[in-house]
Parts: sequence; C-alpha cells; structure tokens
Amino acid sequence: MTNSPAGSSLDAVVRQRIDQKTKPLGALGRLENLALQLALIQQTDTPTLQNPHILVFAGDHGLAAEGVSAYPADITYGMVQNFIAGGAAINVFCRQNNLTLLVCDVGVAGTFAENTPSFVKFKIRPGTRNMRYEPAMTRDECEAAMDAGRTLVNGVQYRGCNVVGFGEMGIGNTSPASLLMHRLTGLPLDQCVGRGTGLDDAGLVHKRSVLQAVADTYAHLNDPIDVLSAMGGLELAAMAGGMLQAAENGMVILVDGFVATSALLVARALNPSILASCVFCHLSNEAGHRLMLDHLGVEPLLNLGMRLGEGTGCALAYPIVQAAVGMLNDMASMDVL
Amino acid sequence: MTNSPAGSSLDAVVRQRIDQKTKPLGALGRLENLALQLALIQQTDTPTLQNPHILVFAGDHGLAAEGVSAYPADITYGMVQNFIAGGAAINVFCRQNNLTLLVCDVGVAGTFAENTPSFVKFKIRPGTRNMRYEPAMTRDECEAAMDAGRTLVNGVQYRGCNVVGFGEMGIGNTSPASLLMHRLTGLPLDQCVGRGTGLDDAGLVHKRSVLQAVADTYAHLNDPIDVLSAMGGLELAAMAGGMLQAAENGMVILVDGFVATSALLVARALNPSILASCVFCHLSNEAGHRLMLDHLGVEPLLNLGMRLGEGTGCALAYPIVQAAVGMLNDMASMDVL
Repeated sequence: MTNSPAGSSLDAVVRQRIDQKTKPLGALGRLENLALQLALIQQTDTPTLQNPHILVFAGDHGLAAEGVSAYPADITYGMVQNFIAGGAAINVFCRQNNLTLLVCDVGVAGTFAENTPSFVKFKIRPGTRNMRYEPAMTRDECEAAMDAGRTLVNGVQYRGCNVVGFGEMGIGNTSPASLLMHRLTGLPLDQCVGRGTGLDDAGLVHKRSVLQAVADTYAHLNDPIDVLSAMGGLELAAMAGGMLQAAENGMVILVDGFVATSALLVARALNPSILASCVFCHLSNEAGHRLMLDHLGVEPLLNLGMRLGEGTGCALAYPIVQAAVGMLNDMASMDVL
Repeated sequence: MTNSPAGSSLDAVVRQRIDQKTKPLGALGRLENLALQLALIQQTDTPTLQNPHILVFAGDHGLAAEGVSAYPADITYGMVQNFIAGGAAINVFCRQNNLTLLVCDVGVAGTFAENTPSFVKFKIRPGTRNMRYEPAMTRDECEAAMDAGRTLVNGVQYRGCNVVGFGEMGIGNTSPASLLMHRLTGLPLDQCVGRGTGLDDAGLVHKRSVLQAVADTYAHLNDPIDVLSAMGGLELAAMAGGMLQAAENGMVILVDGFVATSALLVARALNPSILASCVFCHLSNEAGHRLMLDHLGVEPLLNLGMRLGEGTGCALAYPIVQAAVGMLNDMASMDVL
C-alpha cells in the first residue's frame, strides 16, 4: 500500500492512487472505476489478473424440438468439436489475449474424445427435457449442473486463476434465457424474447408463442432453483453455479451476453452481493440484453453489435480489464512531472 | 484467396469468407465490417497487422498563455519526459498490447536527451505563436510539421509497420482542435469547445471567449493549410501529415480522440478518400467529439468515457482490430460442422 493515510478505507486509498497518476482527474473514465472495482474485489490497492480463464459450458435443449432456433440442435455437438479443435471465434480470441479456454460438456447430446486438455466432461444428462411438456430438469439434475460449474471454478482457482469469464453453447438456449429473464426481472415476456441466432419474423412469432405456453405452465414456481430447473438449461445452471462459486472465492467474474447474463440473474437471486464481483463485458445485439443490464443497473464495457455467445464478449473485453489494472499498478504518479 | 468465384470482387469474396465462418450470419457484428475494411485497405482477403506503432506528436501552444487550459504549459515537457521514461498511460497500454510507441517532439518548449529509441526529434520551433495575436505558424512551419509526420510514418513503414495510431500531447491543444472543428465542419464554435483537461465553468466561459476572438480574426481563411497554420498546432499539423502519408502508403490509420480527429478533419479536407483507411477507436468524453464523428458519419469502437489523448484510445482499441483480423484468418468455416 502506497501513500495511504492511516485508517483510510481501501476505497479512498485506491481513489487517491488513481488521482495521483500522470493524467487529468477522471481522464481515464471507466478504466478508473474498473480499477477500483478490481481492487475492492481483491481487497488490495494493487490488484492483479492471474491465469485468466474462459469457461464455456455446453448443453442441448429438449425445447429445440419445438423449432425455437434458426439452427438444428446437432450444431451444439459440432460447435463443441470446433471448440476442441480450436476453430471457433472464442478459440481465436482466447489465443490472441492469452486466456485459457476450457469447454465443459454438462449436457450435450453426443460424446466427445476426452483426451484433450481443453475439454472437461461433467455431463449430467444428454440435453434437457422438452420444457413445453415437462420440467427441463429435475431439481437434482439442476443442482448437479450447478455443482459442475462450482467444481470447475474451484479447479481453475486451484491452478492460480483469479479472473474467469463464462460462456455457453447450446442451440435453443436463448429460449430458456428469455424465460429466466421474464421470471427474474418481472418484465413482459415479449420484451425478453429475440431472434437468437437469426430467426425470421415468422420464427420469432412462433418462438414467442411457445415460450408463452412454457411461462404459463410454470408460472406458479417462485424459488429460483425451481424456476431454473423447470425453464433453464444444463449449461445455464452450470454457469449460475460457477458464478456463485467465483464470487465466494473472491474471483473476478466476466459476464458475457444475453444467455450468460440470464444465468447471472439466477445467481443474483441466490446471492444479491454477486454483482460486486461482476464485470459486464459487452452489450449483446440480442433483443432483451439491454433491458437485462438496465434491470441490473450496469453498463457493459463494449458495444460491438455481437450476438454469438461462447464467452466472446468476455475475451474481447479482457484487454480493457488488463488496462485498468495496468493503469493502477504501472502508471507513474504526478510527482515525476 | 479461398473459395473465390472467378471474377467476383474482393468485397464479395471477403463477405463470403466471413459468412462461411462457424457462427450465425452477422453474429460478430462490427468485427465483420472491420475485417472487411482491413481487407479492402490492404487489397487482400487475408489482411495482417504488422509491427503496429503508436506515434505521439508533442508540441506547445502560444495560446496557452491566454489561460485556456486547466494545466500549466510546462506539463507538456514533463509528460514527454514521462513518455520517454515509460510511465504514462500510453506506455502502459502499448506495452500491454505489444504496440511500439514513438514520441516525436515537433514543437515542445524544452530539449530532451536524444539517446532513447522511443524518442524522435523533428522540432520545427519550440511551440506555436500565440494565435490570438498572430498566426500560430507560418505556412512554411506548418508544412514542415506536416512533413515531419509524413517522414515518421514512412520510417515506421520502412520497418514493416502497416498499422499506425496517432496520439498527441500539448497543453492547450483542445483549443486549436475546437477551432479546426469549427472551421472544417461549419458547426457553431460553442458546440466545438469543451473543458479539455478539466476547466471549471468560469474557465470554459473564458476559453470560449478567447476562441471566438481567434475564430473571428481568421474567418477570412479558407485553404485548409492556411487554416491549420493560423489556428492549429505543430503536433496537429504533424498528425495531419502523418495520416495523409499513411493513407497514401496503404496503411491502416487508428484515430484517437478529439484532438486527433481534428487533425483528421484537416487531412480529409486535403484527401477526402482518407476515411476509407481510418478505424475510429474511441469516443472521447471531450464535448464536441461526438459531433465530429457524426459529421464524418462514423462510429468509434470504444466508448469508455476517456479524455486523455496520447493515443490511448488507439492502444485500447487495437486488440479489437486484431480480433477482426483473427476472425477472418483463423476461424474455421462451416464445412467443419
């Protein structure tokens, strides 16, 4: 700790350090708030970012049989193979920014070779049930998926990681995300539903109608884990559990787009203080994400019109998080001028 | 060139390559447009980013004697020393993102040791004249500063650089930037003037009054270089010249904030096609930058509430430019699914 008047709070110490840097007061804008947040998460005026990871949780969705996605369900399997082979957008962005990518199968309908270091298998079941006719998961399955997320987060922390981004892959998963948003924010369902990977107008009308039926079926549920079990997804549950564990571990949580933020809504319902650990990385182009972020009262770092998931927003925003830490630790102070 | 139907334009070839990547159509948003722009600048469907540089041009301003800045003029000298010592924000961000920083003294009131590889001396004169009473530069001085920028850009290109960001340091330089904006966009002066490094309300009123007097004095000038000579700055002229040269050389130009964009307005007046070479990196918090960008019809990559200059917006946006290129070159195509 440098230049810290005895007894002053960490908050005040960090603000003072930032204000002494060789720049006009406030001239680094959001980087300054971000540096302060990281300091408070790590409870030090010299925060660091160590062994950063992106965890991509993958799962299939029984509801995909209802035609709620522009893509066929087996794309989930193909994309996980693509992650393992290193060819997806998230692979490219992680390599560029020196992030370690782990892909975790919590619920894909298909099996993968398990001899690659970037792949983790915590399969609960090969896809959720069709929530139009029965709950997507039993409560036990949902809690097992949450535990998978917790376990993976503990694993990467054990390897020295203190900052973790959460991504997902699961054809159809903007549908459970919209339903979770609707139930956990109280916003009308129509405001929570968008085109996902690219539905046309007719597809969007159909998706809304299917999701309204699902929302009506489970309108009596109130417990967040019951809601998640009935209308969520295995990868969503794993993300929610992983986020809760990361916050408990004092790690920095990088929040991606629409689907990842819906998992955070569940985590926040279980632990409202989790928001203090979260860096919101980007604004998704998926309808509803802006409303989700407004509901949380947060502003993301990037707005690039993306809607891909996979944790791509986290990977692209990570250098900005690094810059905030670099500013705090490596910039000279005014006394050099 | 891959999968390019014979005779199709580069534009169509690149769009097709992007659409074949393992992602929904359009799901990478602005990265897709950015990749296309870089391909068109380099006239290849496999653009690359080589030996990226940030060039920071520094100069003092005679107008600073009129009290138009919240900081004293000798901060310019101190900050250049800070750049050379590696302690400024731009140093931190360049190190993080593997950008080479060169600091070029085109007009600082003071001398620097010249034995550091990151420092270049092309001093035209030790600061501009006080434009309230006489033109800031003679036309010869202005053209010499523009040539300094051109020479430095040619020098880094010779060393293999094909992407260059332009930054600046010069206490008082939001004043000439506002005047250039006013003259080159036709917007009312009051909309072009902001608080710079942090003027209070009274300081802003005073700055507006001084700048109105200057604008009135040179209202008869129309030639862009005459306007730049009378109401510009040495570092602004160097940036304008450097940008023109970079465009002529087929290099990618990274445009920083308010002051750098004002230099681009001059460059664009001399070569309207320069915009095709420009990546707008961030929206400055300095009043007027949004209007400048709207005038140009462009949208910057980042909006982080920064107002520091030094090329910091370029350095922070650079990883996004890298990601666009990485997407185009390194992502797998749909045929793997």
